[in-house]
Amino acid sequence: MSSEPSGEYDVIVIGGGPAGENAAAYAIAGSDRTAAIVEQELLGGECSYWACMPSKALLRPGHLLAAARAMPGIDAKGLDVEAVLAHRDRIVHNHDDSGQVDWAEHSRIAVIRGVGRLAGERLVEVGGRTLRARHAVVLATGTRARVPEVPGLRDALPWTSRDATNLHEVPGHAVIVGGGVVACESATWLATLGSEVTMLVRGKALLANAEPFARERVASALAEAGVRVLFETEPESVTRTEPKDTGEGRIHGGAVTVRTRGAHTESIEADEIVVAAGRGPATVELGLAAVGLADGYVEVDDHLSARDVPGDWLYAVGDVNHGPALTHMGKYQARICGDVIAARAEGRPLDGARYAATADHEQVPQVVFTSPEVASVGLTEEAARRAGYDVDTVEIDIAVAGSSLARENYSGRAKIVVDTSADILLGATFVGPEIGELLHAATIAVVGKVPLDTLWHAVPAYPTVSEIWLRLLEARRS
Amino acid sequence: MSSEPSGEYDVIVIGGGPAGENAAAYAIAGSDRTAAIVEQELLGGECSYWACMPSKALLRPGHLLAAARAMPGIDAKGLDVEAVLAHRDRIVHNHDDSGQVDWAEHSRIAVIRGVGRLAGERLVEVGGRTLRARHAVVLATGTRARVPEVPGLRDALPWTSRDATNLHEVPGHAVIVGGGVVACESATWLATLGSEVTMLVRGKALLANAEPFARERVASALAEAGVRVLFETEPESVTRTEPKDTGEGRIHGGAVTVRTRGAHTESIEADEIVVAAGRGPATVELGLAAVGLADGYVEVDDHLSARDVPGDWLYAVGDVNHGPALTHMGKYQARICGDVIAARAEGRPLDGARYAATADHEQVPQVVFTSPEVASVGLTEEAARRAGYDVDTVEIDIAVAGSSLARENYSGRAKIVVDTSADILLGATFVGPEIGELLHAATIAVVGKVPLDTLWHAVPAYPTVSEIWLRLLEARRS
Repeated sequence: MSSEPSGEYDVIVIGGGPAGENAAAYAIAGSDRTAAIVEQELLGGECSYWACMPSKALLRPGHLLAAARAMPGIDAKGLDVEAVLAHRDRIVHNHDDSGQVDWAEHSRIAVIRGVGRLAGERLVEVGGRTLRARHAVVLATGTRARVPEVPGLRDALPWTSRDATNLHEVPGHAVIVGGGVVACESATWLATLGSEVTMLVRGKALLANAEPFARERVASALAEAGVRVLFETEPESVTRTEPKDTGEGRIHGGAVTVRTRGAHTESIEADEIVVAAGRGPATVELGLAAVGLADGYVEVDDHLSARDVPGDWLYAVGDVNHGPALTHMGKYQARICGDVIAARAEGRPLDGARYAATADHEQVPQVVFTSPEVASVGLTEEAARRAGYDVDTVEIDIAVAGSSLARENYSGRAKIVVDTSADILLGATFVGPEIGELLHAATIAVVGKVPLDTLWHAVPAYPTVSEIWLRLLEARRS
Repeated sequence: MSSEPSGEYDVIVIGGGPAGENAAAYAIAGSDRTAAIVEQELLGGECSYWACMPSKALLRPGHLLAAARAMPGIDAKGLDVEAVLAHRDRIVHNHDDSGQVDWAEHSRIAVIRGVGRLAGERLVEVGGRTLRARHAVVLATGTRARVPEVPGLRDALPWTSRDATNLHEVPGHAVIVGGGVVACESATWLATLGSEVTMLVRGKALLANAEPFARERVASALAEAGVRVLFETEPESVTRTEPKDTGEGRIHGGAVTVRTRGAHTESIEADEIVVAAGRGPATVELGLAAVGLADGYVEVDDHLSARDVPGDWLYAVGDVNHGPALTHMGKYQARICGDVIAARAEGRPLDGARYAATADHEQVPQVVFTSPEVASVGLTEEAARRAGYDVDTVEIDIAVAGSSLARENYSGRAKIVVDTSADILLGATFVGPEIGELLHAATIAVVGKVPLDTLWHAVPAYPTVSEIWLRLLEARRS
């Protein structure tokens, strides 16, 4: 580790999640610049220990079991809850970040434990010590779960996504507040692990930003799995007997009573309440005022430079800049940011595609690992029309040779959104079991702006589920 | 069905596999033209009943069982051989093609049963009757398994791919002659279903056209599964006690003794011998001489018009034209061919990308459904160098968050072949469990000639196995 006793580094990153790690690594790659990451929890961040990784570790066994059960010749039993939780623990390295620290040291990045706070231009304060960045400070603190203002909710010590992903006790009955990705994925694994689940959804649909057919398919699949989804319904008040801070992922006390309002007015008894109702920027302790910024998301330009801060020294990557709250997009921004910092440090001009984050606006891919999975990239039809494009769409069931072989009674659906003026794809959505790996083809088509006339010659291999591409293009033609 | 008692059709297709079906359908789509398909066996062809579909129906349960076993929390037993064979039977519709016939009738395509033979310009003879094509005759008879000239082999009534895919009895010990796709896939499912398997491979490697690392991984996986692979070894002579034509997929008599020559000189006792040693054009009964062509593959141009036959009335699609012996490429050619026939019939010029088959030379995708699967598109490094491109490559293990979540001890590897002058991909190969659906992204990148600088902005969703794209591009950069 190339630490500097002087407290000077070329690059200082506050927040050691995937975005922060990548920004640091790219900013110093191939140079003798120095970098430090300031992290107050675990190096690797939310994604590695409390979000993507544990949630997928909990979801994948259920998906695979369903696939095995839908295939003749296999006798599959499960799930063994203890084995799944132990698997999840291995995937999050039992919350030991020494592997990540090894990576950082190997990459010549100093790891400084503590709360990082801006203390002025190029200055970062950590635990009473002031560090100075010669070239850049990168903010990568991400976001935190928001607990809505509902009487009694905070006092009930509700689970957030961190408890749900790191659960050690499976609640007999869980009430989930929210209808977005975290809510839907949590409902999926909780139901798979044996919980009775009730979802309180403020709006009329789950996954509000997805194509309508995707929302509906996830909703009916959850209902089929026994999840009770109450739309247009919110908690009005929450009470809990003997709330107790029993630790992450353990039931936080006695029975919870949730009174609801909206379309369903009920009093629901549950063992735990899970809040998955949005996130806010993790900037409260970040000292934004010291550099003249208001508290809240840090606005950036396409070079990830903080707007409104002169001197090109302050950057923000990941969801703290209000970009897509997705690890891969945070890492994407971090790669661009690191390249920008390197170029500026070396006095090189920012010319070339690599110095501008262009794919984080209208070309964002995402896989929601519900059952069925929802894989989407770019604009939905609604978003494309709103943005003023000339739009045509194709939406069809996934019923090709490959899907008939994947499992019995395969059910899936796909949609493409076409810019008719440019003859290119603006977006695509695939819904189906284990459909996530189909997405990258669409991402390349969207980002590469590959004309549909050319896609006609990109032949899907037979018999794969990817043959849905042929059907989509055929339907578009006719 | 729009049959014509006169025996005149606008388009006559000989051979009703997927390529023939698509050529007929595209040639008449949106018009009032008439078409007939002449088929001597089952409509749907080799792929539907004796190749792709039954083989994948036999392979998928084994792949899924392995995936389930590699996932904590699932207790999976299997395979139940009878259940798998029954599943295969359902996938091949118990060799009942009435569903395909319904499709043809619904598509206004007449189905004529019998052996079709060219009888002169635009003339096709079937069962003593002569049909006349007003616009086009399309040859789509495909290829047939070749039985090598080995003393005793033909008399031993060996299994071909048709018996192996439609097996009703699992041989205790099977000797497979060959090392290509059919041989490797057959070895995989036979071993999974309980056969002891010995492969006799003439060359030094399996899957001779694949990247070296793919060949090696398939070979070691087969060895691990208990398959004995004898390289540089061929059958010298074969004898069988009481050979009997017991029907497709049943053991064809008593014990088989195979004497080998080459690197391994042995006498091997087996219950069945499977010949998977290449294919030849199914043109013997096709009457090529009547239109001035020599017997053998029918050469075509990019419009799928038979070279050396004047008048633009004769076409050939699928592997009978010596194109890639892959259903999806046959269908691709058929779509182009059908569009060409339609345009010519309507007096429209053949301008535009849709009238030339360009992707069947250097941009061919293929998935080999061995365990691990091999998914490749375009040129291997060797082929690219041979073709004179400026080549750079990246080859790395697949070790990303998505693969660690897919199963415990995931093992995979990927390679890209880059045209350094154009900064585009010429080819890509992925090897890993259930990796097939990753291929289409590479196919779009190769066919779309998407610059690597642009691929940098095509962000793979986290945590999917597709994140290997990021690693490949990162490795290329550094």
